Amino acid sequence: MRDYVKNYERKTSKSRRFYSRSTKVFPGGISHNIRYFEPYPFFVNSAKGKHLRDVDGNRYTDYWMGHWALILGHSPKPVADALAAQVRNGTLYGTVNDVSVELAETVQKLMPAAEMMRFSSTGSEATMYAVRLARAKTGRRVIAKALGGWHGFNTTLMQTVNYPFETDEGPGLVQDEGQYVESIPFNNLDASLKVLETIKDDLACVIIEPVLGGAGCIPPVDGYLQGLQEFAKKNGSLFILDEIVTGFRLSLHGAASVYKLEPDLLTLGKICGGGMPIGIVCGDKDIMSLADPVSRRDKEARCAIGGGTFSANPLTMIAGLATLNFLKENRNVYNKIDRLGGMARKGLSKIFAEAGIRCHVTGLNSIFLVHFGKEVVQDASDVATSNKELLTRYHLALMADHGMFFLPCKMGALSYAHDEDDIKHLMVATEKIVLSGLFKQDS
Amino acid sequence: MRDYVKNYERKTSKSRRFYSRSTKVFPGGISHNIRYFEPYPFFVNSAKGKHLRDVDGNRYTDYWMGHWALILGHSPKPVADALAAQVRNGTLYGTVNDVSVELAETVQKLMPAAEMMRFSSTGSEATMYAVRLARAKTGRRVIAKALGGWHGFNTTLMQTVNYPFETDEGPGLVQDEGQYVESIPFNNLDASLKVLETIKDDLACVIIEPVLGGAGCIPPVDGYLQGLQEFAKKNGSLFILDEIVTGFRLSLHGAASVYKLEPDLLTLGKICGGGMPIGIVCGDKDIMSLADPVSRRDKEARCAIGGGTFSANPLTMIAGLATLNFLKENRNVYNKIDRLGGMARKGLSKIFAEAGIRCHVTGLNSIFLVHFGKEVVQDASDVATSNKELLTRYHLALMADHGMFFLPCKMGALSYAHDEDDIKHLMVATEKIVLSGLFKQDS
Repeated sequence: MRDYVKNYERKTSKSRRFYSRSTKVFPGGISHNIRYFEPYPFFVNSAKGKHLRDVDGNRYTDYWMGHWALILGHSPKPVADALAAQVRNGTLYGTVNDVSVELAETVQKLMPAAEMMRFSSTGSEATMYAVRLARAKTGRRVIAKALGGWHGFNTTLMQTVNYPFETDEGPGLVQDEGQYVESIPFNNLDASLKVLETIKDDLACVIIEPVLGGAGCIPPVDGYLQGLQEFAKKNGSLFILDEIVTGFRLSLHGAASVYKLEPDLLTLGKICGGGMPIGIVCGDKDIMSLADPVSRRDKEARCAIGGGTFSANPLTMIAGLATLNFLKENRNVYNKIDRLGGMARKGLSKIFAEAGIRCHVTGLNSIFLVHFGKEVVQDASDVATSNKELLTRYHLALMADHGMFFLPCKMGALSYAHDEDDIKHLMVATEKIVLSGLFKQDS
Repeated sequence: MRDYVKNYERKTSKSRRFYSRSTKVFPGGISHNIRYFEPYPFFVNSAKGKHLRDVDGNRYTDYWMGHWALILGHSPKPVADALAAQVRNGTLYGTVNDVSVELAETVQKLMPAAEMMRFSSTGSEATMYAVRLARAKTGRRVIAKALGGWHGFNTTLMQTVNYPFETDEGPGLVQDEGQYVESIPFNNLDASLKVLETIKDDLACVIIEPVLGGAGCIPPVDGYLQGLQEFAKKNGSLFILDEIVTGFRLSLHGAASVYKLEPDLLTLGKICGGGMPIGIVCGDKDIMSLADPVSRRDKEARCAIGGGTFSANPLTMIAGLATLNFLKENRNVYNKIDRLGGMARKGLSKIFAEAGIRCHVTGLNSIFLVHFGKEVVQDASDVATSNKELLTRYHLALMADHGMFFLPCKMGALSYAHDEDDIKHLMVATEKIVLSGLFKQDS
């Protein structure tokens, strides 16, 4: 067994026992598939700032940052203070409340496309409601998404997610339910438009992540998103931008601002909940008003979207508001995390290039990911066919020997809690791992 | 205008202004359809124990209790203390963690059917995953649910929810996606079995709430649930009990224990999150293991269910664990809330009977609801055709003149924070409303 695996096991003996217990209650010992990695994941019992601490007392600098949601780090003071007061004054009113209006008004001001909105508790719900609204608005059925595009586990959009993308996503998903989803190759505008052309009469919407996130940190090539938007709008279809990852991450005004897009609908989540469960479907007020239960009393007239028991709960509202207010008042947050992201991408590229290790580092602003064995990474297939085994080894070695946590094979994200020293340490650690010969070992 | 409406408006002028702002950010001013009522809902800004407080400073005794989730009241001390400590130590690890194992082991011990489980963040996700697992297990497609049965806003189960049940649930839901859902009349076993018989070859599962909750607090007649279970099991279909409302509400072991059922899959939510967002799909370990990403690496072999970004987050885990531990250690909780529920049902029945107001009070244990204009209430149609206008008036009068909150037309739920005086006050208030002639006014 390789040294870093041995070292990981030696340092995480309590986690190993927790994992054993965990497999007796959860299939595979996890509640979210990507949280498993070999030999077993470490079990966290506290987090603060940029650090995770596990049950064995190990501390890790966290580059996963709660599925990239924690732009200010774990339990940042303004959020923690607000939550600490609120937990004694209600966690679930189950009613309309003042702070939900304040958060919505804040989102509305920051995101020009968000004329009206509906809060739910997860991103998967937000995207499900977005495509439902698109079908209601257009009276059409077909949804176009990117190959490898990730919009959550809802039945409609759980299609062409895992490689090989063309095959079904496993038992339990009924083929007829997927018949109205068509997939387009990300970053290939000509080929994408060809697909859209064949389905244009029944095309309700194109839903797309501006940067493929779960599929591997793939920014759009120039003109790709604009081309899709142009086709959709000309065709009377809706253009839905899924900014659950990029909203408040790429800029205070999201990727829509960075790429000068005007989506009909926008989905948000993660950062805008300040570390609490949230999803938001928002957009054009005429489209959103299709869900208005007050002006549309009869169910025949109303697009039935949730909400849910936990929607607009005061903890999520207060944490989201504290986070967005902090971001508004501290514009240096983006300068800082984007600069750190640039350092990371440049530094890693240089180290691997000098070592003669073939790879490509993707990302922009505060997100980044290394793809081994590739010189060009433009779509989800490029990522899926990169050397994941090498990437897994690299990420586990960072955990085991250097106290740094990337969820294996997932992109890293910087937060305001990180600093230049973290990037320097990441570079030093990477150099050591290169020198250890890990990238030359057979798999 | 009637006095109680005037009184409500007089007392809630700040809420009216909040509602006006709210309609500019949310369609209809709400994020969950049922939270709207006329003339406008009051805006809550804190909650404690059995009380809600609104932005005008009015205090209401709460019988809605966060969609019936708050069995110990708002922010009960053991939950609030645990949360107050945790908010400074991470709200979203994004990883496996120790406390999720403890909560799962606790659920496993209390719910015999829950051999294995998966945590998600909403009930709507849990039911969506349950039916996906049922289809994966059986290789069949059809899902049977009750007319008026409520399993959340997911696309698959958003069928036959609103009266008239036979018509579509509105634009945006594609008919083909609903083709594999068949509905059965609740509490009519013969008619239900006849429907099931016609679809038995492709019947993946029957999913049912043991007590129809959202449809109007309708307990099952003797033998109904058992008859469905028997048919399903004989037919090689799964019997899924949706205990999102009843789990830890009807008893510490749920409705499965009360009605002696052995469901193949169980869905939980609400109470087990201790006031924080949760959904759980759980059940037979062979079925649950279809979702195991470790033993089933290839997507062709694995039933793809979520999780999600916020699944198993430490705040939900800690609040759920504190709640279940309190319930385990204080068995008098159920004695108390069930006794209060019995007092409420009996008292209300008596008052309305003596006043000659035709109605039927349904419920059991700690939940109850009045249905005006009905002597028998056995299914969702009975509730839908009851006099809702009268019920809305009654609930608004309780809010306006007596400081008591029932979400209009929704069932009430008692918590451990309520006491006998609350029930007495509810009776006194109801008597006064009867005497005021409200039930005799024309609509």
